[in-house]
Amino acid sequence: MAPLADLYQLSMAYGHWRARRHRAPAAAELFFRRGPFGGSFALGAGLAEALRCLRAFRFSNADVAYLRSVLPSTTEDAFFEYLSTLDASEVTVAAVPEGSVVFPRVPFLQVKGPLLVVQLLETMLLCLVNYASLVATNAARFRFLAGPDVKLIEMGLRRAQGPDGALSASKYSYIGGFDSTSNVLAGKLYDIPVRGTIAHSFIMSFTSLEEVQPREVLPQGGGEPVDLLALAVSWLQRVCELLQTPPERANQGELAAFVSYAVTFPGNFQGLLDTYCVRRSGLPNFCAVALALQQLGYRAIGVRLDSGDLAKQSKEIRGVLRACGAHFQVPWFESIPIAVSNDISEQSLEEFSREGSEIDVIGIGTNLVTCPLQPSLGCVYKLVEVNGSPCLKLTEDEEKMTIPGTKMIYRLSDAAGHPFMDLMALEEEPSPRAGQELVVRVLGQLGETSKVVPTTVESLHRTYFRDGQVCEPLPSLTEVRTHAQVSLSLLNPAHRRLHDPQPYPVRPLWHHQSTPRSPPQHWWPERGSTSAWRWGCTSPWGSLFTLAPM
Amino acid sequence: MAPLADLYQLSMAYGHWRARRHRAPAAAELFFRRGPFGGSFALGAGLAEALRCLRAFRFSNADVAYLRSVLPSTTEDAFFEYLSTLDASEVTVAAVPEGSVVFPRVPFLQVKGPLLVVQLLETMLLCLVNYASLVATNAARFRFLAGPDVKLIEMGLRRAQGPDGALSASKYSYIGGFDSTSNVLAGKLYDIPVRGTIAHSFIMSFTSLEEVQPREVLPQGGGEPVDLLALAVSWLQRVCELLQTPPERANQGELAAFVSYAVTFPGNFQGLLDTYCVRRSGLPNFCAVALALQQLGYRAIGVRLDSGDLAKQSKEIRGVLRACGAHFQVPWFESIPIAVSNDISEQSLEEFSREGSEIDVIGIGTNLVTCPLQPSLGCVYKLVEVNGSPCLKLTEDEEKMTIPGTKMIYRLSDAAGHPFMDLMALEEEPSPRAGQELVVRVLGQLGETSKVVPTTVESLHRTYFRDGQVCEPLPSLTEVRTHAQVSLSLLNPAHRRLHDPQPYPVRPLWHHQSTPRSPPQHWWPERGSTSAWRWGCTSPWGSLFTLAPM
Repeated sequence: MAPLADLYQLSMAYGHWRARRHRAPAAAELFFRRGPFGGSFALGAGLAEALRCLRAFRFSNADVAYLRSVLPSTTEDAFFEYLSTLDASEVTVAAVPEGSVVFPRVPFLQVKGPLLVVQLLETMLLCLVNYASLVATNAARFRFLAGPDVKLIEMGLRRAQGPDGALSASKYSYIGGFDSTSNVLAGKLYDIPVRGTIAHSFIMSFTSLEEVQPREVLPQGGGEPVDLLALAVSWLQRVCELLQTPPERANQGELAAFVSYAVTFPGNFQGLLDTYCVRRSGLPNFCAVALALQQLGYRAIGVRLDSGDLAKQSKEIRGVLRACGAHFQVPWFESIPIAVSNDISEQSLEEFSREGSEIDVIGIGTNLVTCPLQPSLGCVYKLVEVNGSPCLKLTEDEEKMTIPGTKMIYRLSDAAGHPFMDLMALEEEPSPRAGQELVVRVLGQLGETSKVVPTTVESLHRTYFRDGQVCEPLPSLTEVRTHAQVSLSLLNPAHRRLHDPQPYPVRPLWHHQSTPRSPPQHWWPERGSTSAWRWGCTSPWGSLFTLAPM
Repeated sequence: MAPLADLYQLSMAYGHWRARRHRAPAAAELFFRRGPFGGSFALGAGLAEALRCLRAFRFSNADVAYLRSVLPSTTEDAFFEYLSTLDASEVTVAAVPEGSVVFPRVPFLQVKGPLLVVQLLETMLLCLVNYASLVATNAARFRFLAGPDVKLIEMGLRRAQGPDGALSASKYSYIGGFDSTSNVLAGKLYDIPVRGTIAHSFIMSFTSLEEVQPREVLPQGGGEPVDLLALAVSWLQRVCELLQTPPERANQGELAAFVSYAVTFPGNFQGLLDTYCVRRSGLPNFCAVALALQQLGYRAIGVRLDSGDLAKQSKEIRGVLRACGAHFQVPWFESIPIAVSNDISEQSLEEFSREGSEIDVIGIGTNLVTCPLQPSLGCVYKLVEVNGSPCLKLTEDEEKMTIPGTKMIYRLSDAAGHPFMDLMALEEEPSPRAGQELVVRVLGQLGETSKVVPTTVESLHRTYFRDGQVCEPLPSLTEVRTHAQVSLSLLNPAHRRLHDPQPYPVRPLWHHQSTPRSPPQHWWPERGSTSAWRWGCTSPWGSLFTLAPM
């Protein structure tokens, strides 16, 4: 695949090349400005894919020929020759491990290399990290709301932005805490468990009992094949009597479909209850087939609902399963898993827990993969250093300002193991240590400092890519998923809260206890200042930025 | 690529195969239930891609091996052997031409073939059509709001669901009415015009005038190279004097970046104005460089704004350009195109036209490609016929009911050329004719009929795929775009309205004037009825559905 780039990046590349600045050492950082979905955190994801694309980064002859056709005709030939030699062999990438919890303004990917290449990588990296992190975070939120025991199935294949969008959704929802996907290709490619149930279209394709062919099931314990249809029809009478519902209201096509499915998968029978009427048709038909199977030694594995008031119906269904289990002396019947789907959102899960439900499995599609609460994470990729000088963007839009200089990020945790602050320090500063008193400043608030003593200090970044190669062993998808779940579980409940969380503090290190200094003139411009300053910061180990009002 | 499918489809396929129903002739239809974004219409898109995937539809040995590992161990070997022989050679697909305006409940894709294959195609077709149609429709809405003259650039590469999602966004926004994309790969693959401007990171990579290298530009009319930097610095004095802004507030790094860009692209110079301060820095610097270039015979091609109040600033900028043009006697200066970006939404465009603006070019990313107003079109794919019998889903959720039987769709237009109704008729019914009085019924309303006389009648579906091959010449992307724009322009303003449009009527044909009959018993169940009926409809040419309360 040709490198992913926006046209302006190629124009800029030519600009740098002509100005002979293309090989100037540069650094850029990738971060987001606000926690997605109103939360305080995101899960950083997309790293392995980004590294794969970095390794493959080069322009083919066809790419270069195309670029010749779209850049101005005055563009020099030698530039295109240069482009065709370009790759990422001089690029170094440091990042937080994939699946880590990350916070606003904390760079979770840092890229260093020749200016031209560093800038050309912007779009590709953003494209690979933005959605990956967004959907992983969305999945993590669904997991929090569902609790640890409910099984979550990703079912977004038909609502994603095409096949590849769907594959990304499957992969990164799994990282975020989903248990499985309905997408067979994702299962095959990423070794994610796949799950699926029977569909309305299968049920609708049957209209009468005559269509059930074959009808025999071998009993689990051995013996002669049994006509499951006849058995189910006789059970239907008994079930309808118990449930006091007229047997003639149980749809025959539906019963035919259930029996046919049960004959095909006697050990994996499940029923979709709402093609016609749940109470009078789907549920009696299901119970009849499941009890018939039980007589042959098989256990039905579940029911699914795809419409209506899911929480309320799940309780009614549990009641019926319990009644059948008790009446027909089949104790496991009452614990048949109830699965639901149908436009499930965060709000649905909140309703389920508010109203109480008997739901065991939840399939989520649209609201997982399209992230309607916030369909883009809005990661940005900003130059922070060129030729050894920090650079920044200082604009009318305060939120769009950048924090100059290449940073080290330290995550400070308290005695309970909860991270309580991410500390940005300059690369050349020695790392803060556990147990040490640190003075930190508040971004955007001149002169304000506070003191913290971390129980543990973790340096967040690792170098993953150097000399054109991945230089750190990459964990498997399952390992990334485990890391994400641990990372999430360590969050302080106040930061983990999905609505109105306590903002997680991200602070520049001011000084260690041992080296008190006078405050820097400006780490962050005063609120409301929009004039063009160079930033100033005197770090404990020397002046890094020159304060130069222009 | 392995076929895109959800696991349950494979389980069902096995069910059909075991029941020897897998080769039963079946028909399915793809449609959406509600107009997206609160509008009345969508643009049907994704057809060419769907046909391409249909032709390639087959299971590789590796796919089959994987399926063996996920289906129950009792699944028969012969089924997997059958799967490995499967393709779409017995499938027929009819559809509305790609880029046509389509309305809720009107099937815009019809698939016929063996039941097993028809059901297996569900997810793949939905995945390819859903997002394509959604983003094309979203683009069409932006085009309506922007008016015909503003240039629209798709810039969503970094916010889409990965690289392929971004490519789909570029392609289908172009169909919907965008003029170009920033995505170089999309330009290369689909021959879409690509556009790009200078970026903040380019500007931020300069800090002083010393960095401008080279500085000379050859005048357009010939002659000795001229030091553009020196010329721009002298123009900056004159511009600042005119604008009454202190020259020392114009950021030198920004000026260096502008000059460097202008030296590189003298015939394509454009300025991004808001890296520092638009009024005191970006605009004076831009004007200085553009006037210097003008002195050498070159015209700047535009400015861009990426933050703040875009409409208001565009007017201020136009004022400055006009003042410079008048003062320095450069008449074309006042019409330099002003481009804007920064989270542009439908609401932004409404504000621009309400407040008035001087905006000529709009770049839209996130709100175009992620469709936050409705991130999924919600197309569904439903069986409508098996073994020659119509089938339907009749559920508690009235909106989820389907309309049984394979349908012909006729679009009726009035004397002004506006379509005013889509008519569903059964395949075996003769087509309605222009000028003929037709009696139509209202879906869901028993007994209500109305009469219409269309000026023109167009049969919407064409057969695109037969015997495993595409059998109708497919238009180029540009032709699809033109068709879409014509199709949109024909819409009656009442249906085209983006908010609270008049719903577009979609009606079952009841009878032609010449053959009055008694009404069918049920074309659509009565509102609120949730019991399981078979539908009944006596068509003028014979009974199609049997009414059979169960």
